[in-house]
Formats: sequence, C-alpha cells, structure tokens
Amino acid sequence: MKEINIGMLGCGTVGTGVAKILIKNKDLISSRVGASLNLKSVADIDIASDRGLQFDKGVMTTDSDKVVTDPDIDIILEMIGGETIAKDLILKAIENGKHVVTANKALLANQGNEIFKAAEIKGVDLAFEASVGGCMPIIKSLRESLVGNKIKSMIGILNGTCNYILSKITDDGSTFKEALAEAQAKGYAEADSTLDVEGYDAAHKLALLISLAYGMEIDLSNIYVEGISSITPMDIEYAGQFGYRIKLLAISKNRGDTVEARVHPTMIPFDNILSNVNGSLNAINVSADAVGDILLYGRGAGMMPTASSVVSDTVDIARNILSGSARRIPLLSFQMENIRKIPVMPVDEIFTHYYIRFSALDKPGVLSRISGILGKNEISIKSVQQKGRKTNGSVPLVMLTHRAKEADVSKALSEINSLDVASDRPVLIRIEDENGQD
Amino acid sequence: MKEINIGMLGCGTVGTGVAKILIKNKDLISSRVGASLNLKSVADIDIASDRGLQFDKGVMTTDSDKVVTDPDIDIILEMIGGETIAKDLILKAIENGKHVVTANKALLANQGNEIFKAAEIKGVDLAFEASVGGCMPIIKSLRESLVGNKIKSMIGILNGTCNYILSKITDDGSTFKEALAEAQAKGYAEADSTLDVEGYDAAHKLALLISLAYGMEIDLSNIYVEGISSITPMDIEYAGQFGYRIKLLAISKNRGDTVEARVHPTMIPFDNILSNVNGSLNAINVSADAVGDILLYGRGAGMMPTASSVVSDTVDIARNILSGSARRIPLLSFQMENIRKIPVMPVDEIFTHYYIRFSALDKPGVLSRISGILGKNEISIKSVQQKGRKTNGSVPLVMLTHRAKEADVSKALSEINSLDVASDRPVLIRIEDENGQD
Repeated sequence: MKEINIGMLGCGTVGTGVAKILIKNKDLISSRVGASLNLKSVADIDIASDRGLQFDKGVMTTDSDKVVTDPDIDIILEMIGGETIAKDLILKAIENGKHVVTANKALLANQGNEIFKAAEIKGVDLAFEASVGGCMPIIKSLRESLVGNKIKSMIGILNGTCNYILSKITDDGSTFKEALAEAQAKGYAEADSTLDVEGYDAAHKLALLISLAYGMEIDLSNIYVEGISSITPMDIEYAGQFGYRIKLLAISKNRGDTVEARVHPTMIPFDNILSNVNGSLNAINVSADAVGDILLYGRGAGMMPTASSVVSDTVDIARNILSGSARRIPLLSFQMENIRKIPVMPVDEIFTHYYIRFSALDKPGVLSRISGILGKNEISIKSVQQKGRKTNGSVPLVMLTHRAKEADVSKALSEINSLDVASDRPVLIRIEDENGQD
Repeated sequence: MKEINIGMLGCGTVGTGVAKILIKNKDLISSRVGASLNLKSVADIDIASDRGLQFDKGVMTTDSDKVVTDPDIDIILEMIGGETIAKDLILKAIENGKHVVTANKALLANQGNEIFKAAEIKGVDLAFEASVGGCMPIIKSLRESLVGNKIKSMIGILNGTCNYILSKITDDGSTFKEALAEAQAKGYAEADSTLDVEGYDAAHKLALLISLAYGMEIDLSNIYVEGISSITPMDIEYAGQFGYRIKLLAISKNRGDTVEARVHPTMIPFDNILSNVNGSLNAINVSADAVGDILLYGRGAGMMPTASSVVSDTVDIARNILSGSARRIPLLSFQMENIRKIPVMPVDEIFTHYYIRFSALDKPGVLSRISGILGKNEISIKSVQQKGRKTNGSVPLVMLTHRAKEADVSKALSEINSLDVASDRPVLIRIEDENGQD
C-alpha cells in the first residue's frame, strides 16, 4: 500500500488528538483512502510527557527544523499555535515544498495574506478547516458545497467559551465573573481568557470566513469586535422578556462592494435555531442564493473534534498527492487573481435593531427627553418598558428600536449620557431579528 | 479559460434549478473554479415549455441518446428520476466514459450496487450529494470531513413532506389527512404521496447513508420502514405531555458486525435539537468517535437547494477533470475492495424505549392484566397514565417503557390485543432518548 508521510509540529492538546486518530483509526483511514497515513515525525519541546500514546522509536523529536526539511515528509501539520515559531516553520515547510495543515486562526487572520501567497507561489496546499468551528466543515462547505452559490450572509456562534459563559448566566443567573471562573475550572476557558471573552478569537475566525465566502483578502483590522464581559444577568432577563436570547455572534453580510463583519453580543429570537445552541457548542448559519439557509452545528473546540478536522484536511491533501492534483481547489476558495480587496463596512454605517437600557433617575419628563433625543437622531422606538427594579438609585428604562443607523444611535446615546438625569452609561445590545419589522 | 462541457438529462424542477445556477452564477463559479462550466446540451421530452430560462440555440434537444454519447461532453447530469430510462441512460453515459451526477435516490437505493460497479470498472466518477438531504452536505461530510472518524450512529429528518405534515399536526392540531392536503396544496407533497408519507423515500436515503458510513453494500430491502399515516393528534399531544415531539426519523446505529437501520415515527425530547427542526426542513445528526455529535440542517428538497448540491458535485468532478484526478475519492467512501456485506439487524432484535397507548375498557383489573403481560415479557414500565378522555367508549392508557427488546414488545402487544378488555389495537411509537435511563 502507498504511504503518505506526515510530520507534526507541536504535540499539545490538538496535536495529541491528531496522533490518537492517526494511530487508533489507521486501518479505517487506509480502507477509505487506499493509502497509509504514516506519522513519521512529531516535534515538540517536551518529548518526555506521557500523552497516552505509544509512538514508534524515533518519531518524537525536539528538532522541528529537521521535520520541515525532511525530504521523505509530504505533509506538515502545524499544531504549535501562536504567531512566531509557527509562522517561521510554516514558511520553511512551504519553501521545502511541503503541504501544510494548520488550526492556527490567529496566525492566518493576522498574517494569512503573506502565508497564502507563499503557498500559492510554491504550488503547495495549505488547509485550515480546524481553524474555524472545530469539527464543523464550514470551510469545506464554503469552498466546495456552496461553490454554485452567492453567499449572502453568515451568522455564527464561533467561540465555545463565550457561549458556555452566556448559557451559564442565562440558565443559572450567574454573574459573568462566576461563569468565567466555572468555564476555567472546566477547562473551557484559558487562564488568560481575553482572546475568547473579548471576542477576538471569533473575529479571527470571521476574518477567514469572509475571505472564503466573498473572495476578499483577509482583513482582520476592520472587523468590529465587542466581547461579553459587560453582559449582566439583568439584560439577559430583559432579553428573555422580549423573546430574545443573548449570544456572542460573528455576523457578516454581503453588501456588494462592501462587507459587514462584526462580532458582538447579540439578541436573537427564541425561534432562531442559533438561540438553542447552548454550552460550549458552536453553530453557523450561512444564507446563500440557491440553498437558502444552511446550518452546521457541533463542537467548536476540544482535542478530538478539532483533531478530526486536521485529519480530514490531511486526507484531502493525501488524496491530492496520490492523484497528482495538488492545489485542486484554490486555497481561499477563489482563484488568486479573482481575490479582491473588499472593504469591511465601518460599524457606524450598519443598520440594525437595538436594545438600549438607560439608567435614569426616576423623575417626570425623563422618558420625554430621552425619546426626544432619539427621535431627533432618526431613531424610532418600537417598544419601551420602565422596569420597576431600582439599581443604584435609578430605574432601568428599556427600549427596543426599529432599524436604525449605528452612527445615529451612538450620537444619540452620547447626548443622552450627558443629560443630568442619566445616572450611568446606557447599555446597548444589537438585535438580529429577520422577522422583526422595521 | 478552460471549458468543461455538461449534458443534462431531464429539465423538470431540479434540472431547471441546475440550469438557473449554471447560467446566473456562471462568472462566480468560473472565478472559483478557474474554468467555465458550459451547459452544452439539455435533453427533455418537453422542449417547448417556458422555464424562465434562455438557453442558447441548439442546447435543448429531445435526443437524450445523442447527449450521453456526445464526445465533447464530460459530465452527464441525470435529472429524470425513476428507475427505468434514468438507469439506462446512466449506464450508457458510463459506458461512454462520462462522469455522472444524479439526485436519484430511489434508483441508487434499489439498483446502486450494479450502477456503482459499472462506474468503478469504467473509472468514472458518480456523484449523488443531491440524493440525500437536498442542500445539506451529508455525503461530502461522510466521504471527506469525517474520514478520520468511526461513525457510531446517524439520526435524521430526511423527508420534508413528513416533517411538514407532523409539524402541522403538532402546531395546529390538524388531522393527518388535513395536513397532507395542505402539504399537497403547497407543493411539498406529490399527488401520489405514498413514497414520502409511508417512509420509503427516507429509507432510500438511509440505505445510501449507511453504505457510505459503514462501508457496506447498499441494502434497502432489510431496512425497517413505517410511515406517519397513522399518527394522530392525540399521540402528539400525549408525547408533548411527556416532553417529546414526534418526528419521522431515519435511524442507524453501528453495531459492529451488524447495523441498525430503520425509518419510523419517533418520539424525541424537546432538548434534542432535531425536535426543533420544523416545517419542510431536514436535519441529520451524525455521532462519531472523534467529533462527538455533528448536525447539518437545511432545506432537504426544492428546486434551488437540490440544484445547489448537483452543481457542487458537478464542480467536484470538473476539478477532478481539470487536475487529472478522476476517482480521487472512492464512490461509496470506502475503497471498493473494503466494502463488505454487513447485515441490517432485523427490527425484532433492536432495543429501545417505547410509548404504548392501549385502548382498554374502563374496568377494574385492566392495568394489572396489561402490566402483567408486559412484565412476563421482560418489559418494565417507566411511567403509566390513565387518560381521562374516552375514545370510542374506551379509555386511553398510556405507558412509557424502559429499554426493551422489540420482539418482546411485539409478543406482549399481541397477547394484550387478544384480551377481552382491549377495544382497539395498541399504538406503539418508539422513543429515541439518550438521556432516558434504562
């Protein structure tokens, strides 16, 4: 049987999962592929730890350079993470004509244009299914299954840590701090959780998805990002009263010559299936002209689900090698010459529905002054509720707006914030509700 | 730019959708594929009807033979349906070295072994994503995304007509007859709805999925099939009281040397996301050793969603042609020499939970006699409720069982049915509840 030799860089959580699949399901994979996937070398600074794996002698090494230059190795799996060593090794592997599989969304979102260009010039494959949505085949769906479709929008729950925390606050009434501590105790959140809870991880993933969907260069810098650390049980409760759940969504919409791309806490109606995606699970809905809506749902992180996607990419490349068809599919879904710079729309220009919670002193005329400022700024109110519960001496006044322009809303809120009756900054949460009338 | 020539057989609903995508999104597809997909010939007995499409002169023909033998044509799309002409033309296309795309689940489920063998011998591709789940990439997921996984089970809502009817009965309290009439009026159900409502269409799809998932020859004949025509609003109501919804599910479980494969109305708990898949939508959950659970959700039928999958298959094959890699992936997911005959487990041998509604005369001792027979047959009762409402002079007695063997349940039910207090055949609905204790 033909052999494809694989070199892996990094044997942490995901790397160990990949090795487990390649070893445990070796015969199963061969019976599908018609060739043997041979894990020839695994480079890691730690070659002593027990990973619950029995590597053949000589497989483990600390010399990653030797792995990426080994002439017998066909495919390099970069499982190190981070943007320094990982990048150098990927570029060196490409230089040496190796195909590369990675799960490194931070690296690709920040420096992908350079890396993909290097792969393009060298004519090697660079696959990254595991970088978005763990086991969900969202990249394969965009590059292959939806190839006949114009993608209209993508809305996803792409960070399991945030989804776990928000589910916890929603179901148990925990505070953000308590829920985060529990996520960390369960291993869902890193000790430094900034990348997750502030929305950057989801933004990395969204940057890759919009490139694949719309044929644009990777552009992370202009994606609007807002995390979940200021979400309170109070807003989650009020959301529920209006028929909404709060999720950290990565949202993108194809606006023709521009693209909406943003990550922020969002209210979605109960009957949107995304609102039922709870705990550490991920899901993404893609709307496209032929399929209508299609949703993928599964584990977005974790050792084995992520490893499954790495193995899928590895097999795709192995099949290309076996059939002599490297680069059968363009790396970023579109032929390189058709990839354009499409600007991400500044968040000020988006139109959406808003939930705004004001903390105002309980005095006559407050509602009239607030609604006057909103009206002057072209924001019309769909619903308003004065909540009985006093917080810090003031009363929450909750409004849902009709579709309004973000810039107008920002302007109105800062005007309102400077009123003498405003006791705290207003809380603003965007609403994604396709059934909501204007 | 390189051209791939396509010949299409049949230009009904799905065929028209395919032509629409290939014409309307021609430039978009070229910008992804790097070649032009050219719809060279379309054969149909009706070349006069207005399909809302402007074909170039000479594209439409009534001569399907000429299309499948045209030396300039690379890929044949079989969009005729049925098992006679469609089969002959597919075989003739294969004989002539054409790659084939089809959405014809009935043909493949019944005669697929012969057709795939012909394609195998000739070395051509035969793709059929559109035959299962409309736009959902379930076949691509099984053949590619889950290639490193051992598939443990698949549970799907694979027939939109049945799901629409059951949703209608659940939400509006319609009878089966009323809901069917409405499905027909809306175009979701054919005038002859037998294939759909009796579960055969879902069974065709399941036969293909189990072959792809477990590496077995296609075996439709041993799949247990039960339709939805006897489902009543009463059972749906009682299901709801126990926290379940009724769906027509296609269920398969990998039992090692044997496979469970069955289609029947099934109760699933509210917190199972499949229970929230309503209307004409489809969804499928795949459990596998590395990914855990993964769910695909979308339109399982209809002109454009189905056409999207046909176009995706067509592009896959075009890419194989362009890179000289025909048959890059084995047709049925496993290398032909690794495809075994794996027996489908007789339904009598399955173990599951049951909902049983007895219609018994309201006399003392009835419950004791019924539960005695159940106990004697190794069936233990989890919950029993005597419903107040009289139907035809008798009272419904509803029981949920712990896990029991189907053969034991059948035996017990026929014993109970012969009791003098039994006024009507018991209604039996299987329950799929992973959280349900034994």
